[in-house]
Amino acid sequence: MEGASRVNKWTQKRDKKRAKLEKASRLLNGKFVNTSRIVELMELLIEPGSKVVLEGDNQKQASFLSKKLLEVDPSKVNELHMIMSSISMPEHLDIFDYGIASKIDFSYSGSQSLRVAQMIEDGTLKLGDIHTYLELFGRLFIDLIPDVVLVAADKADRDGNLYTGNNTEETPTIVEAAAFKDGIVIVQVNDIVDELPRVDIPGSWVDVVVKADKPYVIEALFTRDPQNITELQVLMGMMAIKGVYGKHQVQSLNHGIGFNTAAIELLLPTYGEQLGLKGKIARNWALNPHPTLIPAIESGWVESIHSFGSEVGMEKYIAARPDIFFVGKDGSMRSNRALCQVAGQFAVDMFIGSTLQMDAQANSSTVTAGRLAGFGGAPNMGHDPRGRRHATPAWLDMIEKPHELAKGRKLVVQMVETFGANKKPVFVDSLDAIQVKTQSGLAVTPTMIYGDDVTHVITEEGIAYLYKSDSLEERKKALAAIAGVTPLGMESKEKDVRVLRDQGIVAYPEDLGIARQQAKRSLLAAQSVSDLVDWSEGLYVPPAKFRSWS
Amino acid sequence: MEGASRVNKWTQKRDKKRAKLEKASRLLNGKFVNTSRIVELMELLIEPGSKVVLEGDNQKQASFLSKKLLEVDPSKVNELHMIMSSISMPEHLDIFDYGIASKIDFSYSGSQSLRVAQMIEDGTLKLGDIHTYLELFGRLFIDLIPDVVLVAADKADRDGNLYTGNNTEETPTIVEAAAFKDGIVIVQVNDIVDELPRVDIPGSWVDVVVKADKPYVIEALFTRDPQNITELQVLMGMMAIKGVYGKHQVQSLNHGIGFNTAAIELLLPTYGEQLGLKGKIARNWALNPHPTLIPAIESGWVESIHSFGSEVGMEKYIAARPDIFFVGKDGSMRSNRALCQVAGQFAVDMFIGSTLQMDAQANSSTVTAGRLAGFGGAPNMGHDPRGRRHATPAWLDMIEKPHELAKGRKLVVQMVETFGANKKPVFVDSLDAIQVKTQSGLAVTPTMIYGDDVTHVITEEGIAYLYKSDSLEERKKALAAIAGVTPLGMESKEKDVRVLRDQGIVAYPEDLGIARQQAKRSLLAAQSVSDLVDWSEGLYVPPAKFRSWS
Repeated sequence: MEGASRVNKWTQKRDKKRAKLEKASRLLNGKFVNTSRIVELMELLIEPGSKVVLEGDNQKQASFLSKKLLEVDPSKVNELHMIMSSISMPEHLDIFDYGIASKIDFSYSGSQSLRVAQMIEDGTLKLGDIHTYLELFGRLFIDLIPDVVLVAADKADRDGNLYTGNNTEETPTIVEAAAFKDGIVIVQVNDIVDELPRVDIPGSWVDVVVKADKPYVIEALFTRDPQNITELQVLMGMMAIKGVYGKHQVQSLNHGIGFNTAAIELLLPTYGEQLGLKGKIARNWALNPHPTLIPAIESGWVESIHSFGSEVGMEKYIAARPDIFFVGKDGSMRSNRALCQVAGQFAVDMFIGSTLQMDAQANSSTVTAGRLAGFGGAPNMGHDPRGRRHATPAWLDMIEKPHELAKGRKLVVQMVETFGANKKPVFVDSLDAIQVKTQSGLAVTPTMIYGDDVTHVITEEGIAYLYKSDSLEERKKALAAIAGVTPLGMESKEKDVRVLRDQGIVAYPEDLGIARQQAKRSLLAAQSVSDLVDWSEGLYVPPAKFRSWS
Repeated sequence: MEGASRVNKWTQKRDKKRAKLEKASRLLNGKFVNTSRIVELMELLIEPGSKVVLEGDNQKQASFLSKKLLEVDPSKVNELHMIMSSISMPEHLDIFDYGIASKIDFSYSGSQSLRVAQMIEDGTLKLGDIHTYLELFGRLFIDLIPDVVLVAADKADRDGNLYTGNNTEETPTIVEAAAFKDGIVIVQVNDIVDELPRVDIPGSWVDVVVKADKPYVIEALFTRDPQNITELQVLMGMMAIKGVYGKHQVQSLNHGIGFNTAAIELLLPTYGEQLGLKGKIARNWALNPHPTLIPAIESGWVESIHSFGSEVGMEKYIAARPDIFFVGKDGSMRSNRALCQVAGQFAVDMFIGSTLQMDAQANSSTVTAGRLAGFGGAPNMGHDPRGRRHATPAWLDMIEKPHELAKGRKLVVQMVETFGANKKPVFVDSLDAIQVKTQSGLAVTPTMIYGDDVTHVITEEGIAYLYKSDSLEERKKALAAIAGVTPLGMESKEKDVRVLRDQGIVAYPEDLGIARQQAKRSLLAAQSVSDLVDWSEGLYVPPAKFRSWS
């Protein structure tokens, strides 16, 4: 009944935070710590065993904090449970080698996927689980509530208000989870200024600000050079536009990363225009500001784009197109990975993506032998969101057998060449992911997209309209019909294919009225990065590695 | 090529906004407009045909702006397309009668559901569609991008920064959609102050602030008086705790509104404790701060609660329990409907809810004859999120037939008495929603939760473990076995029931080791609202209507 001890019982996290900040107060000037003292500060604020979110976005990296975390004394800071949406840099894994961190929950590992798998096998890294972005964000508020978050912003003002510019990404979501549960919010900024262009994250959510020794690392992940698009990709793009986008009147959609969808973006103003589809399809987008979408935007195809993150080089172009992008009064975009994933899950007609392996039931994964890549947002957008209740023409068009409680489906389209870049067949008997499950001690096989969620598969051979199929056997035959000379494709029988084509379950280019010889690179609205710059009237400023001219 | 005309082409929305604000500048002092001039201002800022979000939350209402919108001249402001997560007040519909608005997209209508249905039939109101909260929020960034948003906050400072206190709800999400797409953000506040306790929404996102003539309306939607809990509900609660929560080790969960789940909350510290389940189940929650959860919190059952919104009377209690709730440095909670719906969809083991009608395949709806109620968040949380990839014990426990690509399922539990409050059977041959579809011109039947997503149904007769069933016929028999003396229940055959019980597809109280006579109200940890106040050590301050004393 004694007030004081009662209060303590329910404010342990807050009291601990206060004590830590008091201990660190000699290093702090208000919220600010000197660049050179950040390691010392982290040693005071990060307790052994803490749950730590290190940003680790898809694009933006808290690279300074990440490097400095490597410098803490592992006898003071250890056994950290890291939570990262993206494991993108070697430092992200070095902390495990150094004995600073021991466990990780993540969404995507990309270039580090080989090392992640190896470290799990070696026991250096204990795997929590693999997540889509949205479920990882959700867990920050449920059972992975962070003790400390290490994030990056462009600028801070003297009150610790933050400006993120175009790359807002998931920073506000991460910070919110910590700030309102007595976690500690540490932010690296490129600059400290008197007045911000706008506020993205209020200073009252922030505990510590440090000016980084250099600007945060950011990658141009979504830039695809048109000159690398092949004529097979042009053919697949034409099939997609006519046989999927046009056929079902797909108005809102997500495009992922990759040359297949880049080809589609560049075909809209040419082939799409010839088909008379302008204004009828592909108007509202959930996607990053892809440079290859510039010609479609300039040609009036695009009404709106909401973005997960930004793209290096697109800043001036975005600023000049506020009717299209989500741009603040200051002229820079506010992206928001959490809200764009919500929109990409529930509010768009179609997800179109690609994969490294697909089995005969259209189950697919980008996790292959020895590589624990994770999936990012693909599983979230690449499934039928059964909680959706509003109807659109494309969604309703997926109803094959009308009945009283029938509802539509999201279009989940997989677009793959029958053989991957490594010359291995994409269609396999059994996903490598099944072995990776055992090797990595996962509870379930790391499947990216489950076959029963897939409505369409497009290869250079044709389209399988899987949503029309009503048996596993028929699905397999439909996939075999477009699987070319892969082992699965060799199982295909001509008489089955004839039936499937008659029923509209499979369509070859000729069934869609597309002649293979039409599929020329000259159909692309831009042939090169330089063409994209021209389309943008010089507003798009590609990173050096994409500039062949000076 | 001329710079000026080029720029205009891509900044139409921004230019229009600027022109409108200039026209209105005589009414504005910075961002502030005098309370008495708001109608005039709205007439200048809201164009005919605009998409307008009127907040319309589940709890908090922009009640001043809503009333004032009724006073605009319909010859100046008309044909508005309203977007409201909740149609809660008569004024929300009066704007249609007055000719100010013509179309609506919404999520939930509750007390206004009869009038909504009537107005659609009369042609006074054109229905866009019914949504879950999350898909409506998603569309704000895709194809329902708002032109104007009318929202409510507690306080503003002189720069227009906003403080929402406990009822943050979806305000930041709505404002973000408008602020970054050149929509106009108009906020009513209870107070204008020099310094805010914290910032919830940065002033740079806000265009107009008006002090309301009285504080915004807010309802105690989630308060259930323990004295109205029946012994049947106690019985069902015991079955739920032992036969579902305990059996599957449900650690993270959502509870909706209602006496069924209130009973469970009050049984955790008594019956749950007897079963030795403390610390093993029901630790991490996505739910509003239910007063009936106070005894479980005080008894140490609860680790964390993230909330969609707040609850009237719980403010002081929440402030004193920051280890449990998401509380800012200022001592008030930050709720967040969008993020809590994300968490409730992806990050929890179980959703448990109730319904007004259920058919023999466990399809259910709260839309009944003549009432277009909508569903709020239930469909979003009450489905298996197929984009989820992380595993928990309860989720894995739903795997009945292990295979290489097997994955878990979310527990979706429906808890109903066989006869509703209106003495009508809950189990019906055909949902009323099917007729409502036709009457309201909906594209699909407004189903709240689809039967194939439901894993468990609990009635006062027993539990049907539908996830164990592998045929529609068997599902129907399992439901019939627990459907009591409803027409469906009368179809149940004793020999079928015996088989189902042997297979564990149906469990009666005795199968769970629960004697019906155990189910006494005395088992509830609190018998009345006054008991809840005592449990809270006086921190919970119930609204007057729940106070029988003083």
